[in-house]
Formats: sequence, structure tokens, C-alpha cells
Amino acid sequence: MKALVFDGKLRFLDDYPQPRRSRGEVLIRVALAGICKTDIEIIKGYMGFTGILGHEFVGTVVESDNPNLTGRRVVGEINCPCGNCDLCRQGLGKHCPNRTVLGIHGRDGAFAELTVLPEQNLHIVPDGVSNEEAVFVEPLAAAFQILEQVNIERDMKVAVIGDGKLGILVAQALSSAGCSPIVLGHHVSKMKLLRNLGIATCLSEACDMANFDFVVECSGSPGGLEKAVQIVKPCGTIVLKSTIAARQSLDLSALVVNEISLIGSRCGPFRRALDALKRGEVAVRPLIWKTFDLADGVRAVEEATSPKALKVLLKIE
Amino acid sequence: MKALVFDGKLRFLDDYPQPRRSRGEVLIRVALAGICKTDIEIIKGYMGFTGILGHEFVGTVVESDNPNLTGRRVVGEINCPCGNCDLCRQGLGKHCPNRTVLGIHGRDGAFAELTVLPEQNLHIVPDGVSNEEAVFVEPLAAAFQILEQVNIERDMKVAVIGDGKLGILVAQALSSAGCSPIVLGHHVSKMKLLRNLGIATCLSEACDMANFDFVVECSGSPGGLEKAVQIVKPCGTIVLKSTIAARQSLDLSALVVNEISLIGSRCGPFRRALDALKRGEVAVRPLIWKTFDLADGVRAVEEATSPKALKVLLKIE
Repeated sequence: MKALVFDGKLRFLDDYPQPRRSRGEVLIRVALAGICKTDIEIIKGYMGFTGILGHEFVGTVVESDNPNLTGRRVVGEINCPCGNCDLCRQGLGKHCPNRTVLGIHGRDGAFAELTVLPEQNLHIVPDGVSNEEAVFVEPLAAAFQILEQVNIERDMKVAVIGDGKLGILVAQALSSAGCSPIVLGHHVSKMKLLRNLGIATCLSEACDMANFDFVVECSGSPGGLEKAVQIVKPCGTIVLKSTIAARQSLDLSALVVNEISLIGSRCGPFRRALDALKRGEVAVRPLIWKTFDLADGVRAVEEATSPKALKVLLKIE
Repeated sequence: MKALVFDGKLRFLDDYPQPRRSRGEVLIRVALAGICKTDIEIIKGYMGFTGILGHEFVGTVVESDNPNLTGRRVVGEINCPCGNCDLCRQGLGKHCPNRTVLGIHGRDGAFAELTVLPEQNLHIVPDGVSNEEAVFVEPLAAAFQILEQVNIERDMKVAVIGDGKLGILVAQALSSAGCSPIVLGHHVSKMKLLRNLGIATCLSEACDMANFDFVVECSGSPGGLEKAVQIVKPCGTIVLKSTIAARQSLDLSALVVNEISLIGSRCGPFRRALDALKRGEVAVRPLIWKTFDLADGVRAVEEATSPKALKVLLKIE
């Protein structure tokens, strides 16, 4: 089958072996997939992964133990836990030490004609949600994860650092929960897009606001966390959303003296993201930058690394 | 008056001008004071402070607007907020940007015959609590602050990193709240002291335990936070108690992927610390290493920098 594979170098192959599903797993024909910053980090060496990249997708079930699933349009959670360890038994399967992760760790991903996931990972896409929207469920769920971890009230002062894809989704997820975040960005066009969505923006260098109750770091740049520490209120909370491979130097005494909480945040609730899309609470189509055929995947990933780019999609079916 | 002063160099002076109290402030004759790691950090350049050092003390009120206070034995909270700014109005006076801090920032400290604090900062020491115990109220309150910030339940797995003064107080504060922390240490004698207090210990290098729900970093060493990240459970919490002047490099992706919370924690509730001492729930006397006269203050601070030392006290009255 056709697949976009990383083995130290990124290549498009048209003779990659088709995956086989085990019992409890489902074979999915991928329709559309999204390129994420994590994919680009993997190509730089993050996680030491080799295999088919890709963890944001929408597709159709081809084969399953459950006949009701066959032919259904689905999206899929990316963590595949062992189900037997202490953490799995405590309901922390997402953090299972033996887990595989779609296109990230120990499991081929979705930049291919076919992919495989456990049945329990799948969510059926409602009729009112298009493929172009459903392909955003994974990153949008990650944005909603913040609301599962912290209690953000309507009248709180909230800032989002970073006007990239993740920042735009996070700002919308927070807005849908009733608060009014301001996004600190660097890119004129992305900040314009945000304002068109009704979200306030500020050029990061020009921002002289401070004492935010919550700051969500979505820039993935070394300066982002530094800025967050500067603008968060004492006893306030910084949520870290970006996975960066590099180590970062940090003034810990500022965290202690100002009693700041720093909370790491990763994958989130697919159901909540699908509901938000179904109800039209979040606009994802304006984030689509370009769509490439899978055969042009190497060029698509190059395009996705451009600082101006938003979401680059791969059309597969 | 006699005072231990830092002006780029630490000196004992016997002709330092006596402090004058303003309206609302109280003049205190210091009986006993404790040397803290923060004092040693200040001598290394932390906070850029010059003046009389010292923020852990017990003393007797000499002059006050409130006649009921005169002659009473007191301890005092160290943060002196402006009372007028946004943060003060929100009840966050401890974090007031205009605050002075006893012996740390903009206000002479307690390593002197006399010191001054606002009346509202003072707590009367109950009769059953000796001066040698009361001098520990400030750091013990900082230990209890953890329990004001996070909800630690009895059956949770809790580790304290660092067997120094702060680690020993934190372990006792957590024990008094019903949980059973284990202290990861480096010093045979300090770990023996902890075991005599009924607290479990483990040599840090030899610790192969993991998946702690809570880890409290009290070592103030660069390796301490690294160790905390290694042993905390996914979705677990690390409390940072040490104020270190230096920047520290940190693998932020571990925080994000494992969804760890990192919580800075500083000064705490004096009333709770006094109550714990009164009820005998916490033993502080075993932490007294040596007591020096104020005139020997320079030597006392040298002694306090020894890795073997526990609490070094200055006898002033």
C-alpha cells in the first residue's frame, strides 16, 4: 500500500506491506490525515520513532470483530494501553508504560491507505461533521483536555501564548467554555484569523498585560514559557501544551516565590471535541492551509514546517 | 544595637542604629533567631539584599499601638504587603508586588537586638511552646503550606526529596496530616534522625521506587527536581519548596507527556504551625544543631553552610 514512512529519512513508498489487525483491533481505510508539529519533531529525532508517521486522521472501518462498525466513519484515540498494568487498572491507560502510540511510538500511523487501532479507541463521526472537520478531532481533544484538568471560570483573565494551530484550537476551546482568552502571537495573518473568530489578540512583544489567572503555553518555543512566567499572576496556573524535544532552562525560584502551578497537558476527550464540532462551537476549516495527495507527502511535510503554515492535510482515499 | 549585617560582606556590628516603628508597627526584642538556607543564598547574591539578615525569630513585644501586645512573646510572618494594590485587595498580600520581606527584601531582619514588623504579622506564642520550638514556626509554616495547596490523602504514595531541615519539617507536617511519606536523602545521620521520628527513609541513589502520587522537592539541588520527575506517577504532582537562585535546565516534554503538575510553594500558615507545636505533633528540637551568640554570627553562618549541619540558632537576648 501507499505510505509515508520515516526511517531516519522521510519517504513515500507505494509497496509498504498492508497492516493486519489482531483480535479486538479494527482495520481502517484512511480518508484524510493531518500533519502535526509532533510529526515534525519526530523527523528531528523526538521519540526515536521509525515507521509510518501520522496520528490525526479520519477514515472508514474496513474490518472489525464488531459488524456494526464496518463501513462507519471513525476517528481514533492514539494511545493503545496494555490493559493489565497498575496504571491501566487505575484508569490511567493513556499513561500506560507499555503503551504503543499511533505513528509516535511502537505502532505504524495513519499516513497510509490503511491503519489499525483497537476497537475501544474509535469514535464514530456524526453525520453533520465533515471529514475536513473530523480530521481535527485529535488536536481539538488535546485543546479540551485543559478543561478536564483545571477549573477555568468565566471571569478569569486567560492568555494563550502562540498563534499557531494549537493556540487557535485552545483559544476556541476555552471560548466555548465561556471565558474570553487573549492570544499572544507573532504572525499578523494568524492573529487576523483569530480576530475573525471573535478572539482577542496581542502582539507578544507588545503585550504589557500581567496578572493572568491562567496562561496556556502553545508556542513550543523556548521564550514561550519564559513569557508565561512573566505574565501569570502569583498563585496562578500555567498549562504546558507543547511537546518540545529539547531541554529548557527555567528560573525555578520565580515558580516558588510566586507559588505558580505548571501543569503538563496532553491528549484529551474525543467525545467533547466531536460534540463541539457537531454544535458548531469551534471553527476548524479556517485552519486548513493546504491539502496534498499522500504521494506528495514529503513536500506536504516541508510545507507544514513553514512558520506561516497552519494545518496541512494529506488526502489519502 | 548589635546586628548581623550583609552589605556585600557579612559583618557583626555593635553600633547599628536602632529601628523605629511606624504607626501600626510593633517593636520586638529578639530572643532567638534561626539561620535559613535563604540567608545563605542571600549572601551568595540572591535577591540583591543588603541590611540586617534573618527572618526566623521569636521575641518579646517592646512597643506597640496595641497595649495588650506589649510584653507578649511573638513570632512574625515575614511578608509586609502594601495593603492597597490589586493583589492585596484579592487577599494575596503575601504576593504584593510592593511588599517588603523581613531580612530578605527592603526591610531589616531579625538577626539583631530589635526588629520591627506590622502588628498584623504577629502571632502570640502559647505558653506551652518554648522559644527553642517557636523559632521554628516560620519554616514549619512553610512546610504546612503544602497542605493548603494540594489535597494529599492518607493512602497516597508520597516522597520527600532532601533530608535537610526543610525536608525533615515537611515530612513531619505531612505525617501529622495522616500520610506516610518516605524521605529520599544523602546523609546517614539525618536519615537516622528521621527514622527516630518514625519516618521512613531511603538513600536517594538506591531508591528504585516510582509512581509516587506526590513528590515534594526540598533538596534545593539541581538533581532534586530531575529525580522528582523520574519518580512521580503520570498525572502526579511535584511540589517545589526550595528557593534556588540559579536557573535550572529541565526536560519539559516529560512534564507534558506524563501530565505532571509542578507547584511552587513558599510561606505558610503560622497558626497551623503553632498549633502543631502546641499539640506536640511535630518535633523540632532534634533539628537544633548548634546555638551561637549573635556576636559570633559570622561563624554561625559558616557553620550553617556545612552539609552536615541542621538548624543553627542565634541567641540574642
